[in-house]
Amino acid sequence: MTRRNEIADSDKEAGATPTTHCPLPIAFSFTLHATDGAARTGVISTSRGEVRTPAFMPVGTAGTVKAMFPEDVAATGADIILGNTYHLMLRPGAERVAALGGLHQFMNWPRPILTDSGGYQVMSLSSLRKLTEEGVSFASHIDGSRHMLTPERSIEIQCLLGADIQMQLDECPAMPIAHEKAVESMRLSLRWAERSKRAFAEKSKPGQALFGIVQGANYEDLRRESLERLREIGFPGYSIGGLAVGEGREEMFRVLEFTAPHMDEGKPRYLMGVGKPADIVGAVARGLDMFDCVLPTRAGRHGQAWTPDGPVTITNARFADDETPLDPASACPASRDYSKAYLHHLFKAGEYLGAMLLTWHNLHYYQQLMADLRAAIAAGRLGDFIAEFRARTGEAVL
Amino acid sequence: MTRRNEIADSDKEAGATPTTHCPLPIAFSFTLHATDGAARTGVISTSRGEVRTPAFMPVGTAGTVKAMFPEDVAATGADIILGNTYHLMLRPGAERVAALGGLHQFMNWPRPILTDSGGYQVMSLSSLRKLTEEGVSFASHIDGSRHMLTPERSIEIQCLLGADIQMQLDECPAMPIAHEKAVESMRLSLRWAERSKRAFAEKSKPGQALFGIVQGANYEDLRRESLERLREIGFPGYSIGGLAVGEGREEMFRVLEFTAPHMDEGKPRYLMGVGKPADIVGAVARGLDMFDCVLPTRAGRHGQAWTPDGPVTITNARFADDETPLDPASACPASRDYSKAYLHHLFKAGEYLGAMLLTWHNLHYYQQLMADLRAAIAAGRLGDFIAEFRARTGEAVL
Repeated sequence: MTRRNEIADSDKEAGATPTTHCPLPIAFSFTLHATDGAARTGVISTSRGEVRTPAFMPVGTAGTVKAMFPEDVAATGADIILGNTYHLMLRPGAERVAALGGLHQFMNWPRPILTDSGGYQVMSLSSLRKLTEEGVSFASHIDGSRHMLTPERSIEIQCLLGADIQMQLDECPAMPIAHEKAVESMRLSLRWAERSKRAFAEKSKPGQALFGIVQGANYEDLRRESLERLREIGFPGYSIGGLAVGEGREEMFRVLEFTAPHMDEGKPRYLMGVGKPADIVGAVARGLDMFDCVLPTRAGRHGQAWTPDGPVTITNARFADDETPLDPASACPASRDYSKAYLHHLFKAGEYLGAMLLTWHNLHYYQQLMADLRAAIAAGRLGDFIAEFRARTGEAVL
Repeated sequence: MTRRNEIADSDKEAGATPTTHCPLPIAFSFTLHATDGAARTGVISTSRGEVRTPAFMPVGTAGTVKAMFPEDVAATGADIILGNTYHLMLRPGAERVAALGGLHQFMNWPRPILTDSGGYQVMSLSSLRKLTEEGVSFASHIDGSRHMLTPERSIEIQCLLGADIQMQLDECPAMPIAHEKAVESMRLSLRWAERSKRAFAEKSKPGQALFGIVQGANYEDLRRESLERLREIGFPGYSIGGLAVGEGREEMFRVLEFTAPHMDEGKPRYLMGVGKPADIVGAVARGLDMFDCVLPTRAGRHGQAWTPDGPVTITNARFADDETPLDPASACPASRDYSKAYLHHLFKAGEYLGAMLLTWHNLHYYQQLMADLRAAIAAGRLGDFIAEFRARTGEAVL
C-alpha cells in the first residue's frame, strides 16, 4: 500500500509548475479505439490516470464507496469513481476537504474522480428548496442549515474537491413533464451551463474537465436544442441528464436513440445515474460511454447479488444450505471464496461482512460487464454479446 | 486468495485416514520457548497451524470477526480466533455448519479456532433460563425458541463446528458472590468438566483439545480446589473463567497471582474475556498465555482507536481537521493511509468504512502488542517493556 506515498511524490513533481496543484497537468482527452454499430470503446485520459470506456463509475457519495476499501474498488477494475457534491459540501465541507489535500487524498483514492453538480441531490434530499435564476437555496437534510447552490458555487466546490471531471449545475425535472415546462427548465440549464463554463475557466486546474448536461425530458426537439446550444458553448464531454427518473427502459432508450447520434463522436458521452446491467448494455449499444449508479453498492448492502444470470436475493431461505459460492470461477474473492449459505447467514445475522462481500461482488460483476462490453466492441461482436446477455438474463436491450 | 483451495487440498490428504475429517491429525501440544519472571512465550501446535503465545484471539461471535475480511484478520498477526457456541448454535445452527464443511470452511478461516462452551452467553443474553445439574435450559434471544445446553451438547456443538480448542461447559457466576454460593457453583462446574471430558473423548477428532475452566470467584481456596480437581481430571490446557466480570483490575490480578503459579507449566493458560491492553500486559506478567476480548472490534465500531499512547475517540471534534493518520509508521494500511480527519468524517457520516478501518487498526494494535510482549519475554526485558508501557499509557500493571 503505497498510494498515499504516490500522491505525495506526484505533488512534489508538481512543484515545478507553481501555478497549479494538479499533480500531472496532462490535458483531458478522449481517444476512440473501436466502434461496433453505434457502440464505441476508447480511453479518457486525465491527470489522475486513464479511464477505459465504456466505463462504470461506482458511487462514492460521502467520500467512500460504501462498505469498500478503496484498493478493492480499484481491484474490481474501476478506473474512476463518482463523488456527490451535495453530500460533501454539507459534510465534511468542501473547504475542509481542500485544506486536507483534496478529495483524492482525503479518501485515499489516487485515480480519477468525477463529481456531479449537487443539483440533483438538492432536489431529491434537501427541504425548503427555492429555485431561482440565480440558483437553488435549500436546507441541509443533515442539520437544517441554509445553503445556496449556484452554477458558480457548484464549480467552486468541485474545484475545491479537486474533481477531474466536473458537471455543470442543471435542473433535472421529474417526468412526465409538459413541453412548455420542459422548455423553460432546459433553457435555464443552458444559461447555467454558460455560467458554469465561465466559473470553471476561472477556478479549475489544468487537466480537469467540465461536462455540459443535455436536458429536455423525452422531447426530441428539446434534446436537440439543448445539445446544439451546449455544443455552441463548447465542452470536452457531454452528459445526458434527466433520464432514469422513472420513465421506463424503453422510453429511456428512445431518448438515447434520437440524442446520441448527434453528440460529438470525439468526446465522451455520459449517461447519468444509469443503471441496471440491461440499461447499461442497451445504452452502450446506443453509443454511450460512461455510467454511474448506486445499484451495485446499495443492492449489495441489502442482500442482492448481481450475476451473469440476473439478480439473486441472498436472504432467500433457499440459500441457507447452499454451499456453492456466487461464482466459483471469479477472480473476485467475494464471489469465489464464500458460500451462498455463509452470505445468507451474514445478512440474517446483520453482520457488516455481508454488505462488504456483496458490495464487492456486485462491483466486480459490473466491472466485468464493462470489460466484456469493451472486448466485444473491440472485436466487433457486440451483437453476439447482447444475444448471450439476453439468453442468460432474459433481458432484451435492443 | 487460495485459502479455500488449501482447505480442499488438505481434505484430500486426510482421505488417507478415513476415520477422521481432520485435515492434518497433528497432536495438540504446547512448547515453552522462554520465560521472564512469571511470563512465558511459546507455541501451541494444532492441526490447523501454530499459535504463538502470548496470543490474543479476536472474537468472531457469529462466524465473522465483525467488519473484517478474514485475510485481513490473519494479516494483523492473529493466529487464532474465537467463535461463540451460543450464537452459532442458534444461528445458523451447528448441524448446518457441520453439513457445510465446518466453521473453518464456512467462514473462510483455515487457521485455528477456539470456541467457548456457550454457557457464558446463555447467562448474559438469553431469557427464561433454568439451571439444573443436567445443564441450562433457555430461550433464544433471537426468536424465543427453547434450547437445552448440557456439557454433552456443548461438546457436541463444538465438535460439529470443528473447533480446534474447545471449552468445557461451566457456570460463571457474577461477583461479588458469597463463599458458600461460589463453592456450589465451582463444584457444579467440576462435575460438568468431567462430563465434558467424557463427551469430548467420544465426539472429538485427533488434534482437537478440550480445556478445563478454573472457577471459584475471588476465593483463593476455591480457585486452588478447582484447579487441583481439574488437574486430576486432566486437560491439555486450562482456562481461568469468572474474571473480568466487574471485579476490577487489581482484584483480577490478585486472583491471577494466587492461581497461575499452580497451573501446569507445560500447558497453555487462557484468561477468558480479557481485556484492555493493560489487563493483558499485567496478566502476561503473571504467567497467562491466551486472551480474547470484544474490545478492539467493538470499540472500533464505536469510533474508539487504541494506540500505543492509549485510547483515542475519533468522533471528538478536535479530529475534524487532523490530517495525520493514527500511526504513520504502521504496517497496517488502516493505521497509516487514512487521516484522523477522514476517520472522523466516516463516523460522523455513519459510513461502514469507519468501522472497517478502526476495527482493522485496533486488531493490528492488539496483535502488535502481543508480538512486542513475545519479543520482550524472549529477550528477557519484559520489565523494560512494562515500564515503557506505563510511561506511554499511564497504566500501572504490576
